[in-house]
Amino acid sequence: MSAKAEPVYCLGEQTLPVPMSLFAHNRKRLCKALKGNSDVSEKSIVLLQGGDEISQDSTDVDLIFRQESYFQWCFGVTEPGCYGVIDIDSGKATLFMPKLPDSYKVWLGEIYSLGHFKAKYAVEDVQYTADVAEILKAASPSTLLTLRGLNTDSGKMTKEAVFDGISGFKVNNTLLHKEITALRVIKSAQELEVLRYVSKVSSEAHMELMRRIRPGWMEYQAESLFKHHVYLHGGCRHVAYTCIGATGENCAILHYGHAGAPNDKKINNGDMCLFDMGGEYYCYASDITCSYPVNGKFTDDQKKIYNAVLKASRAVHKALKPGVSWVDMHLLADRVQLEELVKMGLIHGDVEQMMKVRLGSLFMPHGLGHLMGHDVHDVGGYLEGTPERRTEPGLRSLRTARTMEEGMVLTVEPGIYFNWAVMAEAFDNPDWSCFLNREAIERFQNFGGVRIEDDVAITADGMEMLTCVPRDVEEIEKLMEEGRTKYEKSLELGSLVPAK
Amino acid sequence: MSAKAEPVYCLGEQTLPVPMSLFAHNRKRLCKALKGNSDVSEKSIVLLQGGDEISQDSTDVDLIFRQESYFQWCFGVTEPGCYGVIDIDSGKATLFMPKLPDSYKVWLGEIYSLGHFKAKYAVEDVQYTADVAEILKAASPSTLLTLRGLNTDSGKMTKEAVFDGISGFKVNNTLLHKEITALRVIKSAQELEVLRYVSKVSSEAHMELMRRIRPGWMEYQAESLFKHHVYLHGGCRHVAYTCIGATGENCAILHYGHAGAPNDKKINNGDMCLFDMGGEYYCYASDITCSYPVNGKFTDDQKKIYNAVLKASRAVHKALKPGVSWVDMHLLADRVQLEELVKMGLIHGDVEQMMKVRLGSLFMPHGLGHLMGHDVHDVGGYLEGTPERRTEPGLRSLRTARTMEEGMVLTVEPGIYFNWAVMAEAFDNPDWSCFLNREAIERFQNFGGVRIEDDVAITADGMEMLTCVPRDVEEIEKLMEEGRTKYEKSLELGSLVPAK
Repeated sequence: MSAKAEPVYCLGEQTLPVPMSLFAHNRKRLCKALKGNSDVSEKSIVLLQGGDEISQDSTDVDLIFRQESYFQWCFGVTEPGCYGVIDIDSGKATLFMPKLPDSYKVWLGEIYSLGHFKAKYAVEDVQYTADVAEILKAASPSTLLTLRGLNTDSGKMTKEAVFDGISGFKVNNTLLHKEITALRVIKSAQELEVLRYVSKVSSEAHMELMRRIRPGWMEYQAESLFKHHVYLHGGCRHVAYTCIGATGENCAILHYGHAGAPNDKKINNGDMCLFDMGGEYYCYASDITCSYPVNGKFTDDQKKIYNAVLKASRAVHKALKPGVSWVDMHLLADRVQLEELVKMGLIHGDVEQMMKVRLGSLFMPHGLGHLMGHDVHDVGGYLEGTPERRTEPGLRSLRTARTMEEGMVLTVEPGIYFNWAVMAEAFDNPDWSCFLNREAIERFQNFGGVRIEDDVAITADGMEMLTCVPRDVEEIEKLMEEGRTKYEKSLELGSLVPAK
Repeated sequence: MSAKAEPVYCLGEQTLPVPMSLFAHNRKRLCKALKGNSDVSEKSIVLLQGGDEISQDSTDVDLIFRQESYFQWCFGVTEPGCYGVIDIDSGKATLFMPKLPDSYKVWLGEIYSLGHFKAKYAVEDVQYTADVAEILKAASPSTLLTLRGLNTDSGKMTKEAVFDGISGFKVNNTLLHKEITALRVIKSAQELEVLRYVSKVSSEAHMELMRRIRPGWMEYQAESLFKHHVYLHGGCRHVAYTCIGATGENCAILHYGHAGAPNDKKINNGDMCLFDMGGEYYCYASDITCSYPVNGKFTDDQKKIYNAVLKASRAVHKALKPGVSWVDMHLLADRVQLEELVKMGLIHGDVEQMMKVRLGSLFMPHGLGHLMGHDVHDVGGYLEGTPERRTEPGLRSLRTARTMEEGMVLTVEPGIYFNWAVMAEAFDNPDWSCFLNREAIERFQNFGGVRIEDDVAITADGMEMLTCVPRDVEEIEKLMEEGRTKYEKSLELGSLVPAK
C-alpha cells in the first residue's frame, strides 16, 4: 500500500493507511451539495476553523490534541490552530497553518515548510494563518459560509470560525451546518473502511480482555488493558469516549466510568462485567459493549437475561435496512425483551399493554443506539427535516428517530438493567407495578445489567456488521476458557493480576 | 491500613491510601499563614472554585476530569463543579457540591447525600453549590479571599472563583495566591509520601519498558506500555504530562510527543531512546527520563555522552541541600558536561571562557529542572520576593531561580542534545564556533540526545532520591538483557511486538 504515491495517514505497518483522497472526496461532496443549494450565491467559499489546544487549567500542561470533527471531515489535519477554506465553484482547498516561532525547533520539533503540509494533506494550497484576511480579501468571495449549528446530543453550538478582519466580509452562518451535517451522516466507501478497521481493533481488545479478566481485578484495570490494546496494536491514541468498566450492580449505571464513578470497584467472583469501550483511529470512533461474567461461566439467571438481550439484538439486525424507522427498531427491541422477561417470569400480562405504557423503558431507559462516525454520538440525529424527537419514556432518549439510509453507521445496543433506585419507584407506580413480579425481580437486585452493543453500517438491502466479537454464550465461555489456559501458564500473569 | 477510621483515597490494595488529613493539614497551614498576614482582616474567608468538566468541542464527549490543582491542594475532591470555603479564624472547611438531577441515577450513578461527602472528604460541613450565596451571606464574612495570580510557566492567570451574588460581598483577590503558592512549594511529610509513591510506580513502568522495548517498535507503543503500567499497577489514570517517546534524532526535541510530533517514528536498531514519562496519582506528579539504546547495548559514543550527563547529574545530587542556589546547580551541570565534551574531543578550549559565552546552552538549551508537586511544572518558581528569571541562554529557561529549602521537590534533569537545526546556526556563530570541533560533532548528527531526569526532595542536609531506576550503563544493560531473556520465552511477546 505504501507503494502508492498518494499521501496517507498511518501509524506503522500494523495500522490502516488512510488516503487523503477520503477528505478530498468529502470536500467534493460538500461543494456539490452547496452548488445545488439555491441560497448559496456564486463565488461563495467555505471557511472552517480547526480546533485549538486545551491546557489543564492555568498550567502549561496541554491535553493531547484531538481535531474538531467538522474540520477533520473536510481536511484530516492532525495539528491544532488551523483554518481551512474551500472555494465552492472550483473545489480548491486551502489550508492555513500557524507560523511557528523559531524556538519551536528546540522544544517541539522540525518547523515544516508550507510545501510539506501541501503534500501531507494533498490540498491545492497552504498558507499561514496570519495571512488569512489578506488572502481571502484577494480572492474577493461573495460570501464566507461559516459553521454554526446545534449539536443535538450535547445541546452545544459549534464554534464558528473567526479571524481578525472578518468584519470586512459578508458572512453567512446559516447554510453550511445543515449541508455538511447531512453529508456526515452518510459514510463514503473510504470512511466505511476506517470504521471497519477501528471496530476490528476494538473488537480484538475486547476479546483480549475476555481472555485475561479475573475476579479480584479492579474495574479500572480492565479500562487500562483495553486502552493499551487499541493503542499498541491499532494506533488508537484516543478512545472515542470514557471507558465504561462496570461490574456487578454498577452495570446498571449507563454512563459509569466518569470522575464521579471512576471504575474503582473491585470485581467480585460472580459479578457480571459490562464493558462499553471503543477505540478511536484518526478521529473515527467505535463503540462496543460486551457483557459476560468475570469468572467465565454464566449462571442460569445471567444466561437468561443475556439471551433475552441477544434475541432483541438479532431481531433488530435482521430487520435493519433502508426505509425502516429507527423508532420502530427501538420498539422491536423493547418488545422482544419484554416477551423474554415474561417467559422468565419477571413480569406478567399482555405485552401489547406493556408497550402502551412504555414498560420497556424501565428495563432499557436508553435509546436502542445512535449514529456513529467522527463522534461516537455522531451529528445529524435530529437534522432539520428529519423526524422529531419523541416524548415517551425510552423513545425520548433516542439520539435519532430517522429513517434508515444506505451509508448510515449506527450502534445497535439493546440492554436490560436492574437499577434499584429506579425499580423501587416502579414498584410504587400503578401503571407499571401491575406487570411486575416483585419477588422474582428482587432476585436481581445486585445483578446490574446486560448490554450488547454492535456497530453496523446500513447497506443497500440490509446491514453490515462492523463489530467482530463472540456473542453466543457458548462462544464467550469458550474464549474465556482459552484465556484461562493461555495466561495461567504465561509469565505475564503476574504483571496483569494485582499484586497481593 | 484500612483498619484506620480516617477516610482515605485509594484505588485498591496495590495502591497507596492517601488520608484526608493531608488536606486538613494543608488548610491548617494556609489559615496560619493568612492569620500571620497583617493585610488579612478578621472574619475573612477563603473561597476557591474547583475545576469544571471539559467537553470535546461541541460534542457530548467529556474528557476525563482532573481537579484544578489549588483546589486539590486544599480539599482533595475528585468531582467537578464544586466550591470550597475555609473560615480563617476557626479553620472550618465547607465544601459545596452540585445538586444532581434525578436522571443522574440512571445515567451516571448513585446520588450521594451531603453527609456522604462530609465523611468522604473529612470536612466540617457540606452544602449545595446552589446555596453558596445564601450560606456565605449568613456567615457575614468581612472579606472573601479569592485566587488570582500568574502561572509563571504558562503565562496564564488562575481562574478566580465567581458565583451569582458575589457582587454583594467584599472580595480581595490579591492576597491569597501568594500565600497558598508559597505553601505549595514546601511539601508536607504526607505529601512527600504520595510523591514517593508515584515516583516509584513510574520508575517501575520505566524499568518494564527497558525490559520489553525492541527495535522495530513504534515510539507510541512505548507510550502505550508506560501508561498501561502506571494505571494497571499504580492506579494512575492520568499521566502528569504528554509522554515523550523520542528515539533517534527525535531525542533532541525537548517536548516531543504532542499532536504535531506524536511519537510516530519506527524505532531503528541502534537508536537511542529518550523516554520522558511520569504517572500522576491523585493529582500528584512524577517526571522521569530514562535514556538508553533500544537494542540494550550502548555503543562507545552512546556510553560517553550518557556518562557525561550522568556525571553532571551526580554532581548536582551531591551538591544539593538547603541554601544552595538552583542557578548555581544549573551552572554546575553545564560545567561538568562541557568538561566531559572536551575530554571526548567534541569541543576544545578554556571551559571558563565557554561558561562566559553560555556554550552549555547549545548542548542543554533547557533548565536543569523544576519544582514538582500537583503540577509537573509546579507553581512558585518565580514567586514575588524570590530571585528573578535570568536572561542568559539556558538560564532563562530555568523555571525557578530559587534558593533550595527543605521540603522542596524538584526534578534534576541534565542533558546533552545534538539538535542539528540549532547546531548549524552555532557553527556560524563566532562566539561559539571557536570552541567546536565540527568534524567530531558531525559524527553525532543523527544521535539525538540524552537526558537523565530524577525527582528529588530537599532534606534538612541534602536530598532524598524519589526515582528508583538503574542509572549506570552496566545496570541498564543488565536489566535490558534480563528482559530479553524473560520476554523472548514468554507467550506475551507476540502481543507486544507489532504484527508483521
